[in-house]
Amino acid sequence: MGKKLSHVKPDGSVRMVDVGRKRASVRAATAEAIVRMNAAAHRALKAGTLIKGDALATAQIAGILAAKRTAELIPLCHPIPLTHVDVAIRLRGRDAAVITCTARCVGQTGVEMEAMTGACVSALTLYDMCKALDRGISVESVRLIEKSGGKSGPYRR
Amino acid sequence: MGKKLSHVKPDGSVRMVDVGRKRASVRAATAEAIVRMNAAAHRALKAGTLIKGDALATAQIAGILAAKRTAELIPLCHPIPLTHVDVAIRLRGRDAAVITCTARCVGQTGVEMEAMTGACVSALTLYDMCKALDRGISVESVRLIEKSGGKSGPYRR
Amino acid sequence: MGKKLSHVKPDGSVRMVDVGRKRASVRAATAEAIVRMNAAAHRALKAGTLIKGDALATAQIAGILAAKRTAELIPLCHPIPLTHVDVAIRLRGRDAAVITCTARCVGQTGVEMEAMTGACVSALTLYDMCKALDRGISVESVRLIEKSGGKSGPYRR
Amino acid sequence: MGKKLSHVKPDGSVRMVDVGRKRASVRAATAEAIVRMNAAAHRALKAGTLIKGDALATAQIAGILAAKRTAELIPLCHPIPLTHVDVAIRLRGRDAAVITCTARCVGQTGVEMEAMTGACVSALTLYDMCKALDRGISVESVRLIEKSGGKSGPYRR
Amino acid sequence: MGKKLSHVKPDGSVRMVDVGRKRASVRAATAEAIVRMNAAAHRALKAGTLIKGDALATAQIAGILAAKRTAELIPLCHPIPLTHVDVAIRLRGRDAAVITCTARCVGQTGVEMEAMTGACVSALTLYDMCKALDRGISVESVRLIEKSGGKSGPYRR
Amino acid sequence: MGKKLSHVKPDGSVRMVDVGRKRASVRAATAEAIVRMNAAAHRALKAGTLIKGDALATAQIAGILAAKRTAELIPLCHPIPLTHVDVAIRLRGRDAAVITCTARCVGQTGVEMEAMTGACVSALTLYDMCKALDRGISVESVRLIEKSGGKSGPYRR
Repeated sequence: MGKKLSHVKPDGSVRMVDVGRKRASVRAATAEAIVRMNAAAHRALKAGTLIKGDALATAQIAGILAAKRTAELIPLCHPIPLTHVDVAIRLRGRDAAVITCTARCVGQTGVEMEAMTGACVSALTLYDMCKALDRGISVESVRLIEKSGGKSGPYRR
Repeated sequence: MGKKLSHVKPDGSVRMVDVGRKRASVRAATAEAIVRMNAAAHRALKAGTLIKGDALATAQIAGILAAKRTAELIPLCHPIPLTHVDVAIRLRGRDAAVITCTARCVGQTGVEMEAMTGACVSALTLYDMCKALDRGISVESVRLIEKSGGKSGPYRR
Repeated sequence: MGKKLSHVKPDGSVRMVDVGRKRASVRAATAEAIVRMNAAAHRALKAGTLIKGDALATAQIAGILAAKRTAELIPLCHPIPLTHVDVAIRLRGRDAAVITCTARCVGQTGVEMEAMTGACVSALTLYDMCKALDRGISVESVRLIEKSGGKSGPYRR
Repeated sequence: MGKKLSHVKPDGSVRMVDVGRKRASVRAATAEAIVRMNAAAHRALKAGTLIKGDALATAQIAGILAAKRTAELIPLCHPIPLTHVDVAIRLRGRDAAVITCTARCVGQTGVEMEAMTGACVSALTLYDMCKALDRGISVESVRLIEKSGGKSGPYRR
Repeated sequence: MGKKLSHVKPDGSVRMVDVGRKRASVRAATAEAIVRMNAAAHRALKAGTLIKGDALATAQIAGILAAKRTAELIPLCHPIPLTHVDVAIRLRGRDAAVITCTARCVGQTGVEMEAMTGACVSALTLYDMCKALDRGISVESVRLIEKSGGKSGPYRR
Repeated sequence: MGKKLSHVKPDGSVRMVDVGRKRASVRAATAEAIVRMNAAAHRALKAGTLIKGDALATAQIAGILAAKRTAELIPLCHPIPLTHVDVAIRLRGRDAAVITCTARCVGQTGVEMEAMTGACVSALTLYDMCKALDRGISVESVRLIEKSGGKSGPYRR
């Protein structure tokens, strides 16, 4: 009940919370996004993967670049010198691509937004690459899978 | 069957397709994202909305700014001088926020990626604002709702 | 009395207004900023100007670059393909530098924010270059000097 | 008399000074900007504030985002991982809005440019939100209010 | 003899030249960069290409993204809504990779800087991908290959 | 023979390698780029240098700004809070400009890409400033000159 939206001040305005007194520690977070598409798009993506990989490579690189720019996109995120970003994409069944983004830093605040942003932008890029084959593609279930480091301790969905 | 991933060349590498010969016309697209959260986060957001609106304002502005930067984030998107962007957020039931992003331009290519990107980044921002109250928030169902302008004609999900 | 904040919707939320139906025309705007500093900083800047010009060149270039990025900085500004930007800086009296930024485009919306942003960032850069000599430098009177093009007609302060 | 423009080399060209040997310490700075507008704009802003807050929220968020991007805008500023940014806006009298931006980091160089940039861009955003009601709005007196941390000791205007 | 540096004003300061009165036409430019590396790096890149393509895909995508951001990097370049960008990379002999970047727009100014920037950043990315295998890699001969559109007529090296 | 492209994973996809366990140390790197131009361009640049310096100042500043944005341009580079960047340009003979960019940081990974990127973008800017006088300008021999700090020890070409 005493819990508050952490970025909102008593007068209702917003701020980037002060993390200057937090202890620097290794922080890691992994987020996942699922892209749902029709069979034609899935087949084309799969063929692309096995032979050349470029559509998936594009989405992977877009996710890595976006994770690094999280603080420009999410207004109240702290700029974080990430020490590691990895985006993996695997095709599942006949209609899904599962994107996993892991981010790491040594710092005073967590990197879950970096992982979430990387997964989201990678998913949007897959959408862009495949939309000529299926206008009904959707990005589903972008969510945090796990998180470690910091005072609040490890989290695993 | 003859359909292809439009951004992939015969040799498997990628490109930003040439839209220089397409006719300039009014293009519009609307995308939607749903953010699912627990009751505590939803209540805090709702209280915020009715009294001050700043958490929602932050998400709204983040979405507008991101829509304008789509071509920096999605590698094969064309830079587009958008003439209009609007992000609306409404709280629904006890656990959802529905984000709708509409983008418009007068140009040679569609703006669905701009609408999708605006909705996604707005959703990520809501996640960021509320994550202190619920670590299990997810972004669901980011998808195109409607689209008009261009050769392929109007689309409505 | 019926006048409204143009970017605010009836429900109080914000949007990037739709300029898609406005007529494209040549738009121009000039803004001015005055940087006030102590005599030591002014002398150093003046010596720099006459002999090498680099401190002023830095401020000039920063202003030009910033004018081009206005839509990234000011949330509800439209992205505008500027056709011209010019930043001029002249030293005045013993304690002032006057920065004038002119922007132009052929488009559907005005460029006064581009001129204002260019003048402001150029002024901040001068501040940065000189702050080792005077901690009390201030940027004064950033304002629109003139504006032309568009439905509302020419304006001159 | 021996004082020099710190970013200018003996040959007159510029550089980003080397701060690698400075000691990391907590650095803070607060800057202020005043936006002067007519009564109509002030009233609209005030009504907006009390009821919905969105015009002010937009300016506040723009300032926070800009503070984080200072090193991209001001050529010779060091990239700084800010630990805190706060922008507050209060309406004063019948014609002014006072913007205060505070920035903090744990680092090797001061954050006064971050505070100045945040205040300036927040002021420009207020200008943009209100310019339909008053073309003669001006940004006045952007200046450093206080600063702490670092070798040169605390400063208070 | 009457020829001048086009971006330099009579007083020696710089500007983004006014292209507002130029006629909009289809503009295209192609630039080339050669990356020279040792045999080990070349072999690894080649193996990568044939089997998976990802190192080359990364460089290709980096080039496309950079071409779109030319006006942010090159101070006096105009922002240009590119209608097409393509980066191709082919391995040559035992020690070279040849990068070709083509850019196109319908606009008032040429796109050679966009082609040059795309080629350069793609080359830098290849360097980055391979530098663990060869510290002596160099980027050679970044230059314009051909150009068309605009008043000055076609150019071919 | 066991050497690998460091950014490529066993499955052929790419990642930003994890530097979180590397020891923070002072890192420095210097890169060089040579711009080759005709005598007319060289003379104009030289005249400009001696009298006003602005064309060279523009290229110098563009290089400094680009070095700071390396991680946005090169997909797998880590974001690095640089403590120092310096770009020097000297005219040589009758047809060359030699650009030297030095970058420094205290961190977990090297700064050679920052030095290379600064040199390259500075060279591209010189090209842009002079291209009205010589369409055949080329950027040659962008390469690392020296590097220090980190486990692999100092390097000097």
